[in-house]
Amino acid sequence: MTTFRILVAYDGTGYVGWQRQASGLSIQSLLEDALRELDGSDVAVTGAGRTDAGVHALAQVAAFTIARELSPDVLVRALNARLPDAVRVLSAADAPAGFHPRYGAKKKTYRYRLWNAEVMDPFARACAWHVPGPLDVAAMCAAARLLEGRHDFAAFQASGSSVATTEREIFASAISHQHSALSYEVTGSGFLRHMVRIIVGSLIEVGRRRQPVEWIADVIASRDRTRAGPTAPPHGLFLVGIEYPGSLADVS
Amino acid sequence: MTTFRILVAYDGTGYVGWQRQASGLSIQSLLEDALRELDGSDVAVTGAGRTDAGVHALAQVAAFTIARELSPDVLVRALNARLPDAVRVLSAADAPAGFHPRYGAKKKTYRYRLWNAEVMDPFARACAWHVPGPLDVAAMCAAARLLEGRHDFAAFQASGSSVATTEREIFASAISHQHSALSYEVTGSGFLRHMVRIIVGSLIEVGRRRQPVEWIADVIASRDRTRAGPTAPPHGLFLVGIEYPGSLADVS
Repeated sequence: MTTFRILVAYDGTGYVGWQRQASGLSIQSLLEDALRELDGSDVAVTGAGRTDAGVHALAQVAAFTIARELSPDVLVRALNARLPDAVRVLSAADAPAGFHPRYGAKKKTYRYRLWNAEVMDPFARACAWHVPGPLDVAAMCAAARLLEGRHDFAAFQASGSSVATTEREIFASAISHQHSALSYEVTGSGFLRHMVRIIVGSLIEVGRRRQPVEWIADVIASRDRTRAGPTAPPHGLFLVGIEYPGSLADVS
Repeated sequence: MTTFRILVAYDGTGYVGWQRQASGLSIQSLLEDALRELDGSDVAVTGAGRTDAGVHALAQVAAFTIARELSPDVLVRALNARLPDAVRVLSAADAPAGFHPRYGAKKKTYRYRLWNAEVMDPFARACAWHVPGPLDVAAMCAAARLLEGRHDFAAFQASGSSVATTEREIFASAISHQHSALSYEVTGSGFLRHMVRIIVGSLIEVGRRRQPVEWIADVIASRDRTRAGPTAPPHGLFLVGIEYPGSLADVS
């Protein structure tokens, strides 16, 4: 039995998300189906980030244990031959037995892409949120920085979620832009359900000058979901990468 | 009656190309249908570049004459409201009566995108050609430069085409690359049918070291389609822009 960890990129358009659901195609089920065909028995795949329906990944980390002896290179080719073009295994490596991509992760990075122009770029329509109209990008940059640090992010969690604690640490939270393309990138110890999308919806409120920069701090302090902005749509969001401590650091 | 010229971007995936065909959706027919609805009568749209099925455009130029009085801004919004997301009118401007986007053009620029890595980027799969395996990029750069100048490009024309002359002038022909993303960009006085795609297929022969750099000059001199490389697939090709002389220079 060998435990592997793999790096996976996917265009989440049309999928029900990372996690297997009662109906619809999930990334997890595609990988499990490909591995069952390859290994001849049921294989459970765990992922580092449970991305929602329509959310993309540049470097999701997943792990599984198979009976068949395969080199990492052969495994990558065999999986890609069995997966749709929208899902690609970028690399594979041996992992210590018991490696868990989610519990073992130290940091996760997400990126949210926006297109701020009157007319949407047809090539970005599947992977950026179209936000027309003027945006105060400097105010958005300042507001983004207020999210850094250890906070209770209960206000930025999908209503109805239940987790042990809503405290998370954000190491970096920044807006960058180049012409019409805006990008929000955030690195944290972990994220609550819809957290990045509610942050982006809130930063847009600041960008549209419906709220001042300092309002973001008030929203954090409120711990009240109804105080934050709307949830940005899923198709602008990318899981960019996962960091592991020490000996687990190099995935590829 | 007002003659307008418009800049149009489109993701050509799934379309039969620019030109109206007996069956299938073309960009021209989508624009003509939207304009008929807007103007209340048949409107003929002419385009600068007759892109093939599956080929994309960042800035196609098209022209038409309508009876209805509309400002350019209102026209852009009205057309985009009637077009699919894959086709966007970027801007509109008044044009002199009789303006013909193809006959009036001075230079056209095309770009061909390639992805040179073992595993395809799922986000580039609809708009780049996946070419795995090692490529001698320096040789491809040198070969690309040999196409510059005024030549008879009969060897780089789809077989069965008939045009008055196969002589064209290439002003710039260059390869650039950044990690796995390769890009070929070419500016010329005009292009023969499949010319850019046959050039790219030929440059890949050089990149794979199946042919030496100077072979490209021999292929040009041969005027024989069977001497050139294969035709690269359409989905990597983009019409990037059209240049007009003097007073017609500014489209947007």
